[in-house]
Amino acid sequence: MPYPETTDAFTVTDIKNWSTFKRQELPLKKFEEHDVDIAIEACGVCASDVHTITGGWGEDIHLPLCVGHEVIGKVVKVGNKVTRVKVGDRAGIGAQIGADLTCDQCKNDNENYCPNQVDTYGAKHTDGTVAQGGYSSHIRGHEYFVFKIPDNIESALAAPMLCAGLTTFSPLKRLGAGPGKKVGIIGLGGLGHFGVLWSVAMGAETYVISHSPSKKDDALKMGAKDFIDTSKKGWADKWKFQLDFVINAADATDKFDLAEYFSILKVNGTFHMVGFPDNKLPSFNAQVFASNGCYMGASHIGNRPEMEEMFQLASKQNIKSWVQEIQLSEDGCKEAVERVYKNDNVRYRLTLTGFDKVFGKR
Amino acid sequence: MPYPETTDAFTVTDIKNWSTFKRQELPLKKFEEHDVDIAIEACGVCASDVHTITGGWGEDIHLPLCVGHEVIGKVVKVGNKVTRVKVGDRAGIGAQIGADLTCDQCKNDNENYCPNQVDTYGAKHTDGTVAQGGYSSHIRGHEYFVFKIPDNIESALAAPMLCAGLTTFSPLKRLGAGPGKKVGIIGLGGLGHFGVLWSVAMGAETYVISHSPSKKDDALKMGAKDFIDTSKKGWADKWKFQLDFVINAADATDKFDLAEYFSILKVNGTFHMVGFPDNKLPSFNAQVFASNGCYMGASHIGNRPEMEEMFQLASKQNIKSWVQEIQLSEDGCKEAVERVYKNDNVRYRLTLTGFDKVFGKR
Repeated sequence: MPYPETTDAFTVTDIKNWSTFKRQELPLKKFEEHDVDIAIEACGVCASDVHTITGGWGEDIHLPLCVGHEVIGKVVKVGNKVTRVKVGDRAGIGAQIGADLTCDQCKNDNENYCPNQVDTYGAKHTDGTVAQGGYSSHIRGHEYFVFKIPDNIESALAAPMLCAGLTTFSPLKRLGAGPGKKVGIIGLGGLGHFGVLWSVAMGAETYVISHSPSKKDDALKMGAKDFIDTSKKGWADKWKFQLDFVINAADATDKFDLAEYFSILKVNGTFHMVGFPDNKLPSFNAQVFASNGCYMGASHIGNRPEMEEMFQLASKQNIKSWVQEIQLSEDGCKEAVERVYKNDNVRYRLTLTGFDKVFGKR
Repeated sequence: MPYPETTDAFTVTDIKNWSTFKRQELPLKKFEEHDVDIAIEACGVCASDVHTITGGWGEDIHLPLCVGHEVIGKVVKVGNKVTRVKVGDRAGIGAQIGADLTCDQCKNDNENYCPNQVDTYGAKHTDGTVAQGGYSSHIRGHEYFVFKIPDNIESALAAPMLCAGLTTFSPLKRLGAGPGKKVGIIGLGGLGHFGVLWSVAMGAETYVISHSPSKKDDALKMGAKDFIDTSKKGWADKWKFQLDFVINAADATDKFDLAEYFSILKVNGTFHMVGFPDNKLPSFNAQVFASNGCYMGASHIGNRPEMEEMFQLASKQNIKSWVQEIQLSEDGCKEAVERVYKNDNVRYRLTLTGFDKVFGKR
């Protein structure tokens, strides 16, 4: 058994064969006094994994690469300065595994914008080791990016909250979702379904905006007030000036008529993106913002307090992620990323499980 | 004398000869019970005038057209329901002259986003008359868009506040300019210089961001804390994560490296545009917003309460617009729009004056 200095990982070795996974040992970063080792038991499959291994977000990636940044497992070792978790705890790591924790951003609870942030996979740790993700036996990271998971949320459902959940929770929180607010969620996929669950849980009147009318029933089951079907020409006309803000969880914004989407916002409303297309946005006139004084922006995951608040909310309101499980294996990884790539009946998030069957009890 | 049913106007008759002005009579809208007639004594020259008459913002304009939407003069007639001004008052009209005043936007002090707003020139009033601007003897508009001018602000200096002043004041106010905030103003021109004057007056630490280092002295005289020279390569490096928001008063945003400008914003900061280029913005990746979670947007002038607050601030702090006067005439209009078009030593706003010499006492 290779651990504690390596992890037993399902890796992509070539972006041209991005769905072919090879199991191999990869080094872990040097263990430091704030580090936590986790024996992984579940890992969510994020669209980011697919954008990364296909080269969609850039072909310059470190190979072999083990993706996966929605990682849950059991704490098996802690550094001597670790206070946030202890051996035996069930804990998770999301899309960020490091930051300098000393810059102005870190000091202001914006460690997710730290210029020295370390992504959970594909980035380099300060010791030069390439960070490897959760399609794997173990993961090692700074305790600041390790989160205890409430007992009443099972691992397969908690895993996708660590990235998709936080990525939607953070802007909803910062933009003030709550009673009296009308919030739109564009795109009912992995990200979007969390957007709906959180927005509803926060008390906002929530609308799903989607070009897939077949998802209407699910949207309503998740608590949406109504479903706005963008496949119909002129769909925006009856929604002009209606919504306080929208969270755009679709990664097809490059194909949007932005003026139409902006038009459904109240004055000074916000079009907030959390899904990023591989392609550039279409060129547009600056005046497109001027008919209602709206804003467009985006965010990158969320901070530690938001992660903790999200799990508290999920625990308290007993919120269930809509998850389909896939057993971990080379074939399982292949099936998972191909289904996300093709958007093949993923309703609404996939979690790799069955790690003990592959790696044994750890 | 043609008034009260027509105005004696300096007009553009052909966008190909956009700086050739012809004096002619044009009809005023039908006089209604909330209308106010003003005998004009000064009119600011706005870049919008030039974008409009050159066809830069669209070639489909109503000709002949009299532009000018920074209009000051004496109230000479009021409808029987008018309460906001009385005959003899000195009053002004900015870039908006009508709205339905009944929609949700109007009822929430966002009449500047009313879908039935009427621009001060070039738009159609509800009676079908094309609205004509302030390079002219008289103007007629609904009292809601007529503002009493404080006695201690002379007309030539008050005029440009009605559009350029309000256009910068409104976003500064809505974005929270004040003590403890660091605000950037991009482009020290007609709009930008008001941005600096207001931001300083509101108590914000104010930075001028410009590619014209020759304007540094003026920026500091206006009260800016520092001058950020964008003509130097790598100019943004030392300003990363520094500013709460920027007001972009330049109309050359189509030539900007947006990632560089966004990088100087604090987390969740705002890049707010008030100047609009003729060309589209360059195509960019949605991820450009993600390194600091920033927003991009724009606004359209401001509302009535903001206009009133702006004039109170200017009056109380004795704020002086930096204005050069040009005498009204066909040649004067030509000189004015050509200088604005060429950005020919306009420091920082032109006001047409000498109306009584042309039209006599009215």
